[in-house]
Parts: sequence; C-alpha cells; structure tokens
Amino acid sequence: MNSYGSRFRVTTYGESHGPAVGAVIDGCPAGVSLDMEAIDEALARRRHGAPRQEKDEVEWLSGLKDGITLGSPIAFLLRNKDVRPEDYARLEHMFRPGHADYTYYMKYGLRDHCGGGRASARETAVRVVAGAIAMQLMPEVDIRSTVESGGMPTENDTVGGVVSCCVRGVAAGVGEPLFGKLNASLAAAMMSIPSAIGFEMGAGFEAARMKGSEYIDLWNSQFLEGDGNRETATPLTITNHCGGIQGGISNGMPIEFRVAFHPVVTIPQPVECLHEDGHLETLQIDGRHDRYHIERAAVVVEAMTALCLINYLL
Amino acid sequence: MNSYGSRFRVTTYGESHGPAVGAVIDGCPAGVSLDMEAIDEALARRRHGAPRQEKDEVEWLSGLKDGITLGSPIAFLLRNKDVRPEDYARLEHMFRPGHADYTYYMKYGLRDHCGGGRASARETAVRVVAGAIAMQLMPEVDIRSTVESGGMPTENDTVGGVVSCCVRGVAAGVGEPLFGKLNASLAAAMMSIPSAIGFEMGAGFEAARMKGSEYIDLWNSQFLEGDGNRETATPLTITNHCGGIQGGISNGMPIEFRVAFHPVVTIPQPVECLHEDGHLETLQIDGRHDRYHIERAAVVVEAMTALCLINYLL
Amino acid sequence: MNSYGSRFRVTTYGESHGPAVGAVIDGCPAGVSLDMEAIDEALARRRHGAPRQEKDEVEWLSGLKDGITLGSPIAFLLRNKDVRPEDYARLEHMFRPGHADYTYYMKYGLRDHCGGGRASARETAVRVVAGAIAMQLMPEVDIRSTVESGGMPTENDTVGGVVSCCVRGVAAGVGEPLFGKLNASLAAAMMSIPSAIGFEMGAGFEAARMKGSEYIDLWNSQFLEGDGNRETATPLTITNHCGGIQGGISNGMPIEFRVAFHPVVTIPQPVECLHEDGHLETLQIDGRHDRYHIERAAVVVEAMTALCLINYLL
Amino acid sequence: MNSYGSRFRVTTYGESHGPAVGAVIDGCPAGVSLDMEAIDEALARRRHGAPRQEKDEVEWLSGLKDGITLGSPIAFLLRNKDVRPEDYARLEHMFRPGHADYTYYMKYGLRDHCGGGRASARETAVRVVAGAIAMQLMPEVDIRSTVESGGMPTENDTVGGVVSCCVRGVAAGVGEPLFGKLNASLAAAMMSIPSAIGFEMGAGFEAARMKGSEYIDLWNSQFLEGDGNRETATPLTITNHCGGIQGGISNGMPIEFRVAFHPVVTIPQPVECLHEDGHLETLQIDGRHDRYHIERAAVVVEAMTALCLINYLL
Repeated sequence: MNSYGSRFRVTTYGESHGPAVGAVIDGCPAGVSLDMEAIDEALARRRHGAPRQEKDEVEWLSGLKDGITLGSPIAFLLRNKDVRPEDYARLEHMFRPGHADYTYYMKYGLRDHCGGGRASARETAVRVVAGAIAMQLMPEVDIRSTVESGGMPTENDTVGGVVSCCVRGVAAGVGEPLFGKLNASLAAAMMSIPSAIGFEMGAGFEAARMKGSEYIDLWNSQFLEGDGNRETATPLTITNHCGGIQGGISNGMPIEFRVAFHPVVTIPQPVECLHEDGHLETLQIDGRHDRYHIERAAVVVEAMTALCLINYLL
Repeated sequence: MNSYGSRFRVTTYGESHGPAVGAVIDGCPAGVSLDMEAIDEALARRRHGAPRQEKDEVEWLSGLKDGITLGSPIAFLLRNKDVRPEDYARLEHMFRPGHADYTYYMKYGLRDHCGGGRASARETAVRVVAGAIAMQLMPEVDIRSTVESGGMPTENDTVGGVVSCCVRGVAAGVGEPLFGKLNASLAAAMMSIPSAIGFEMGAGFEAARMKGSEYIDLWNSQFLEGDGNRETATPLTITNHCGGIQGGISNGMPIEFRVAFHPVVTIPQPVECLHEDGHLETLQIDGRHDRYHIERAAVVVEAMTALCLINYLL
Repeated sequence: MNSYGSRFRVTTYGESHGPAVGAVIDGCPAGVSLDMEAIDEALARRRHGAPRQEKDEVEWLSGLKDGITLGSPIAFLLRNKDVRPEDYARLEHMFRPGHADYTYYMKYGLRDHCGGGRASARETAVRVVAGAIAMQLMPEVDIRSTVESGGMPTENDTVGGVVSCCVRGVAAGVGEPLFGKLNASLAAAMMSIPSAIGFEMGAGFEAARMKGSEYIDLWNSQFLEGDGNRETATPLTITNHCGGIQGGISNGMPIEFRVAFHPVVTIPQPVECLHEDGHLETLQIDGRHDRYHIERAAVVVEAMTALCLINYLL
Repeated sequence: MNSYGSRFRVTTYGESHGPAVGAVIDGCPAGVSLDMEAIDEALARRRHGAPRQEKDEVEWLSGLKDGITLGSPIAFLLRNKDVRPEDYARLEHMFRPGHADYTYYMKYGLRDHCGGGRASARETAVRVVAGAIAMQLMPEVDIRSTVESGGMPTENDTVGGVVSCCVRGVAAGVGEPLFGKLNASLAAAMMSIPSAIGFEMGAGFEAARMKGSEYIDLWNSQFLEGDGNRETATPLTITNHCGGIQGGISNGMPIEFRVAFHPVVTIPQPVECLHEDGHLETLQIDGRHDRYHIERAAVVVEAMTALCLINYLL
C-alpha cells in the first residue's frame, strides 16, 4: 500500500494537486538530534530544475521536541502551492498515453485527474525528506548516485537515463536469505520510483553473458593480512561482479547497482489521448520541459537506498 | 525473513542437506480441488538435468481433505534423499568464492557448510510446488518463460543467461501505487531467485536510451470498437514498451519482463577458497556439470511470478 | 508500533502538547462519499465534558476530492490549541504515580513530559475520526456501547467503570481461526485504549464458574424454519454466553463484550511523585475534574470496534 | 491468519485428525543450543490427563544442526497417531452446540468434521513446543501460571476456570505505546487460546469499582536507595494494581494477569445438534471426560506468554 519498511516505516500521503503531501515515520529511535539543514539541502537538490516552481518547506507535526526525536511517530507535510487544477480541466475524461491515468481509472473507477494525483513525481519529495532522516541514523554509510547517461533533452522531446549507485560502509552480514534478500529489497525500492524500468546489481545483465570462471569474484589473498583491520584491509575480492551482495547478504564490498529510467512521458509536443468514451483526441499537454528528470531521479535513488538500508540496520 | 506474500503467504524452510525442505501456505481459499499431477509436472520440469538425482515426492501434511483445500494452512515437505555431508567435510572452514558461505558466516556467526544449507537452489523446489498451487487459483492467467540466452556450458565452465517472461490474462487495474507497485513486487520476487542479478520491465535498459516520443506506448484507435469485448479487442496500445504496467498497475496488455542470471558459481575446475583463518587454498569443489541451470531458473521464474500475482488477485 | 489494522490501516501520530495529532488511513476504498457531519458528531460526543476546552476541527490533507474518497491514503490532523507547556514545567524530572511517565522514560531514555505526550487520551480523538469513517463503510453493522457503572466521580477523586458493547449486523463466518480470532483482535483493540484493564466476551469471567451443560448455547429449533430468511429468523441460539463468536469466527448472533477501565490516574488531590534522582515529592498535579472519563471511553470503544471489524469486512 | 509474532514468527498448521500438526519458527537467533528435554517436559505437562492417548514426539525438520540453531527457520511436526475418523462419520452434517462447527462452515463453506479439525485443542501442542523454545531465549524471565479455580469436573459435566499468570524478570521499558501495547498483545495472545473468554491485567474488573486514590500504585520511597541494584531493590511501587504495565510498557514490577476459560463444550451427556438441513438431533458426542482442561490451558497460557514476550525482547 502506501507504507515502506517494517522497522523504519514511512507511510506517505498526498495528491499532486491536493492540499499537501507528507508522511508519518514510525520507528525512528529516540534521542537523535536531526540536522534540519541536511534535509532542506536534499529537498533543494531534488527540486533543482523541476517544472513546478515552489520552495518545499517542511512543516513538522510530531515526534520532535527542540529538534530531538522522541521515539514517537515523526509526521511532516509539504504544502502544495503551485496548484493549478484549471490547467487540467480538459483532461478530466482523457487518458494521456504513457501515464497512469488509464490504470488508476481501471483500478479505482475514478481518479484525480489533476497532475497525476498520487502517481505524480511530486510525491518523491516526501521520500527525500524521509531518506534524509534515515541517512542521519547511519552516518557510517555513504550513498552516492551518478547519472550515467540521459543528459539534456532536445527542444521538443524528453530522454531516459541510467543512475548508478554505490554504497560504502555497509559491513558484511547485512541482509536476509530467501525473500528478505538485500538485493531483492533494493530492487523493489528502486522499481517503486516513478519511471524506473530496470535494475541490476554489479555486472547485471552483462553477467548473463559471462562464463562462471569470468564472473566469480576471486578472494584477495591479502585480505585481513596485516593488522586485521577491516577498515584499512585490502578489499575482500579482486572484482565486484556480484555488486557486494551474495545470497542476499552483504559481503562488505561496496554495494553497486544501476537503475534504468524511461523518458518522462509528458512530452512538449501534441499527443493522442484516449477519451473515456473510446475516441482519440490530439492534445498539447504541457509546454514545460523537464530537463533534469534523471538528475532528480538520482536524488530519489539515494533516498530510497537509505530507506531500504535503515530497515536492515536499525 | 522466510515468508513470501501477504494474502497467499508461503513460509519455506529446510537446509539443502538436512532432513527435508518444505513450506506452509497460508491463505489458500477453501474448496479448491488441487491438480496434483500439475504440481508433479512442474517439479519434474525443475528437476530436469539437475545435478542431484532424487525424485521429488511431495508429502502433504495439512490443509487438504481428499485433495480439496480446507482453507487452513497447506503444509508439505520434500525429503532430502541425495544427502552427502561427507562430500562437504573439507569445506567446513572454507569459504568458496562466489558463494554465500562468507556472508552467511558473517551474519550468523556459524553456518551449515553442507551444500549451501539454506542458500542452496534445492530450496526452489518448494517454491515450484507453491507456485503450481497459485497458478491453479488463477486459471485465466497464462505465465510463460523463455530462455533467451545462456545455453550449454562448455566442458569445464558454467554460463549465465537471461529468462524472459510473458504473462497474459491479467486484467487492467491490478497493482498498487507507490510501494506496492506490481512491477516493484515482480522485481523483488525475481531478485529473490538464486543467481538473479538483473530485472527489467518491457523495454527496460533500452528505454533509458529512448526519447519520450519513441518510448510512449500510443493508444490503438480501434481499442474497444466493435463489440466492446476486451478479450477479442485490438490491444490497448500499439507498442508495449512499459511492459504492461503503468504507475504500478496493470493496463491489460501482456506483462513482459526479463531476468538476468549470473553463471552457476560452482564450476568444474579448481578454485581458490578462503579459509576462516585467512589463507587461500585451491580446491576442486565439484565435478558435476550443471548444464540446465538457466532452464531450471526459468521454471522458478514462472513459480515466483505466480506467487507474486496471486497476492494481488486473491 | 503506531499503526492499527492491515487492510484498513490507521497510522496515528502526535503528542498531546505538540502542534497536532492526526493519522493516515490506508486502504479506504475509492468512491465513497463521506458524511462529514457524522464524523464531527462522533468527535463532539468524545469531547463532551473533557477537561481540555478546544473544538476539534478536522483538517483534511489528502485522499478526498469533493468529499469522495480517491482510494489513496486519507490524511487528516487536529491542531492542538489548548497547549500549556508552562503548566508542566515542574513535572520535567518527575514521574507521576499511575502514569506512563516512568515507563516511557525507561523505554526511550527521554520523554515529552507535557500532558503525557503520546500516552495522552488526546490521541483517542484521532481514533474516533478513523472509526467514524470505518463505520460508514459497513452501514449494515450497528455498534452500541453502554456505560454499565462508574458514574460521577466524587469531589476530589476519580472512578473507574465498565463499558459494555453490543454489535449487531455482523453475518456468520467473519473472523479467523488461531491467531486472527475476531475475539482476540477485539481484545487487543480494547486493551489499546488508555485505562483499559480488562476484557471479556459474552459470559466472560462468569463462564469460568459455569458447568459445561449451563454454558453451552443451545440451538434454537425454529432457526431457519419459515422462509429461511436469516434477517427475520429466530436467533441461532437460545443463550449467547459465547458472545457471538465461536472458534474465533462470528456465528451471526450479536457480538457482546465488556471492557473494564481503571479510574483516571490524574486525581484532584496531592500525590507523591518520584523524582528522576530517586526522592519523592508531593505535588498537586491538576485541579480539573475529569467527570466523563468512562463516557468518553465508551465512544472510543465504539471507534476501536469499528476499526477492528472493518479489517475483517473489507 | 496462522502466524503469530513478527520478530519470532510461529506459523502453525495441521488438522486434529490429519497426518500431523506442526509449525515453522522464523526469527530464532543462530547459535543457540536447545534443551530438547525441556521441550519434551512442557509437552508432557500439556498432555497430562488429555483424552487423546498419544505420546507427542517432535520430529525436527530444519533449522538445527547437532541441536544448535542455524538462524534459519526451525520446522517441526507432531504426527497424529490417535486418529479415528470413523468416530466422527455421523457428525459429517451436524453442528455440535458450543463448538466452532457452524462458524467454520459459514466461513469456508466446508469443514473437516473430524475432531474439530483446525479448531481442536490438539493444535496447542505446537504452541507449547514453540513457547518452550522462546523461553530458552530469555532465561532471565520466569513465567508461572496457576489454576485459580475450575477443578475436577463432575461425573457427567465439565467445568470452566481461571488461570492466573505472573511473569518476573521483565525489565522496565518493554512494550510499545498505542497499538503495540504489551498488555494488548498479551490480551490477544491469551484470547487466541481455545476456550479463553476473559482477560484482565492486575486488579482488572475490580479496578472498575475503585476510586483513583485507591487504584493508583504509589511509589516505594526506598526504591533505588542502597546500592542502586534493581535486582535487590525494594519494589518500584507498593501495590501492583496495574499489573506491571503502564501506557503499554512494563515498569519492572511482576507482570500479572488472569485468563478466564469457559468449560469444555464437549460434555459427556447427550446434546442437541443442528443438522445442515435445519433440524435438531440429540447425540451423545463423546464419553471421554476431559478432567484436566484448565490445567492444560495453564500450560498453554505460559507458552503464549513466552511467544508474546519474545517478540518484544529479541
């Protein structure tokens, strides 16, 4: 449903063009002094270049006293300011191609046609706040995402891209066998991001073309020689084709994965929409270019990685 | 942990070389007459070409009366017959490269060194039984997997491969927004299969290189013209780059995805193992070739797809 | 943690003297037109005679469009207006007797000493809103609570009481065997209400003194004679000692249970408090009498009954 | 459904007169040496005086190596030996009064009429095994139940009774506010036991007749004087009317509660049964007296208390 996580559970809410988006975080330990600036910075990174021009100000509702967590649920919200329902009036009975308009309608029998409602990328701002809190609970972990491709869209089109992510500082032994595998949880976390369409650990799809003798990550003979300090030790394996996870459990190597995103499906050119009555109609949906779609996705990749990991590390 | 699903919950157990592997299925509706032959056939498909020579006979413990489900938990087990702990004695203190030996040890502080214990592919037999039951609860759904690449391993090496899967018969409107997205659940289900290392929906990683105008699946103008029968209608969209899911919810098109598997990490040639004390030692682990690794994975892909879907459809 | 329910999941938040209390409801079906007056009436019933003088105005944040549910999470909040942290300054290092001050401190290592923080009865206003929504989803069910005893407190003391509850309109067959028993869920729901200290179904503790031949609810011979209409039929059993639930599943008879509440532990006379440093100190905590404690508890009993039942009936 | 617990999750299965009853325990830590004799002793206590004459031998299927837990799921079963389906043939279309026959039928549309199927007390043997394992994981906790009343049934009738339980060794700070209250979880655990019909903490229903000044547990002035050793300290409070839990969290005092059980509903005299077609028929169900019903319930109370607590303490 709309909750993520078991130990550090984030329940999000809010439509793109309703009064607010927000979340309740249940499971945050007591006594943590939150760095509110770090949260605002993460939000600012996500907002960079976004089509909607609105500063995201977090309104904190509970769970904090003088910036210290109480151990009770942390509730917060972000008011929606740049709300223009009138822009969407002509879409009330139309299904845009590539969007979730049709599928929401088939599931719920009705929908909020304004700006995608719940399916809007607006909702990811909430994940970024929650992720920024999660990161502060595991300072030893470093999560870094990079936009590998995608780049600037052309004058009347959008582009897809790939975000790669490298996580350092997760000790060996984190994860679960079977259905709680760390890589399976990361896959689900990433595929929950709007526009995500592919996920791979380490060598990923390339590994499907390898032979076993090429794929296997060989042990480093110098691992744990010297002073036995894992922090300064030679890496455990020579290569990292597995992406730092074996049998669903981390081996202490960097956790590496890549996420493919399809292009933004709101394109700045006329498209054929499906009317509820079955006929097609050509409409110009939006003139605003979304040039930093993949860059923003990379910020959400980091947030979801943090939310995934904290549920294993708390 | 070791349970999969919420409405149709499968809890598995068993070590590769312990007395048995098995599961408890909670949530199966009452009054269903199970086709036991279909279950045995699925098991036989998975067993085909497996290194372990043992016929899998399902022992049913509960939840059935005269082959009819009672609505109570269905428990079953498969005895492990081809158990050879003596083969593994010399591995007691060794971590094989590429395996989960090291990570299990780091998590639990101890491990069952015999045949991978819980991390063994042996456990997937249990999933195949549960998946075969799930399939019988949704006869309108057709799940078909194909081995795209991989093929026969060479004389002293193993190979990876890709399994593609196409699911027909899932109506539009199945799934959840946000964190219960059908594609996210499929990703987690697939990445929970041993050796899975990548997952993509529809155009997948290829979509990251597309422009929006190329990627968007255009509406079919003839959809629902004629007699309005969805079964015989023109497909909803001209292309299916999204793989049949938009905003986490099915649109009624075939659900298409691909899973990358890395090569079997037990290779028929000597490999350097890491001893618990830190030194490396070259060992010949196993002389048995596993030629049908990807074919068997394809059977498990179908089973996990069924287990994923039934949790949305019940 | 702070969530109740699986299918209709209510996640609450808010400290008694923080900015707001509120909740997110996940799982409410789409397309339901909510009766906002009924929600306000339930809140007014709960507020009647409460020590805190503040009108509860619900601020709706998401999940609704023109009063119709969208199927997405319904978030709402109630601002705390009558917040007087200065009243509580002298309690910062004191544990009041009978309260949760000490146990919260031992669990979290810190606490919000203002008005009980999260343990305050203030939080039940949120449950009443959620319960009022749940009731609207099952119009065939009638939940009625009665204050059996308790009554007016004396001039400088508080009293306990018993609330009995009768639920009509739940068909036979609702519940689960084993750990999801309807009576077990009702027990947990009731014991989650502040001050609840006892729960019994039907004949309850009295049944422990009965013989089997007295206790067993005998079948009514005329049940289903006549036109076979269950609505107008003679009741299934002559007595209802079991309280309408057998083996964890409803039998169609009225569901009857009683909840014991201990007296309010804030009494209008001086009490000895425990200082964090170990010494005792006599303090007059509050001069305001809480005369309608049990009456308000009865409203919460109805709300929690609704929240319990809707998770079986959706 | 059929699982209990989140961190230490027990999933049970098995019909009374099917091949076996058993469970899978997920979440047991690795490296624990299980005392198998203690488990057998608990089973023997539960079996004492039971109508069914069969020695319960636990068959361990997974999760153990040389009696040491592996951290993987512990699966076990108890074969049903004293199975006499022919005894039940004449009950196939009859609903016994007081039993769950009718409610199961209304829920599932069919039922296993042999010996109560899933509703049988036979299933509690499984809980006793799981509880005995849980107890070994928290050796500092002492759980002791006492039969307060009930006693020997008369020559042709059964009796109810009350089991009181006292838990020592649970430190202050164990529990959760709101919906995860320790007392609420205990209530649900107890009400999940067959025949349980009432639950109360500490002063319980008696507290409903008290004034606040009588009910409040006063602080002990000598608490933590002396050497500050909580083990040897004066008890925290003079009385323990709250039963050791405040605001859902333990205060370190003994946790005290009582459970009411109604009489066994299989009585050794003729009773009127309801036929599926609506007519009543007088049948003599069983001639075997169940004299130790409440004594056996007391063993299950201890087991469920252990299963409840371990989910907070792990």
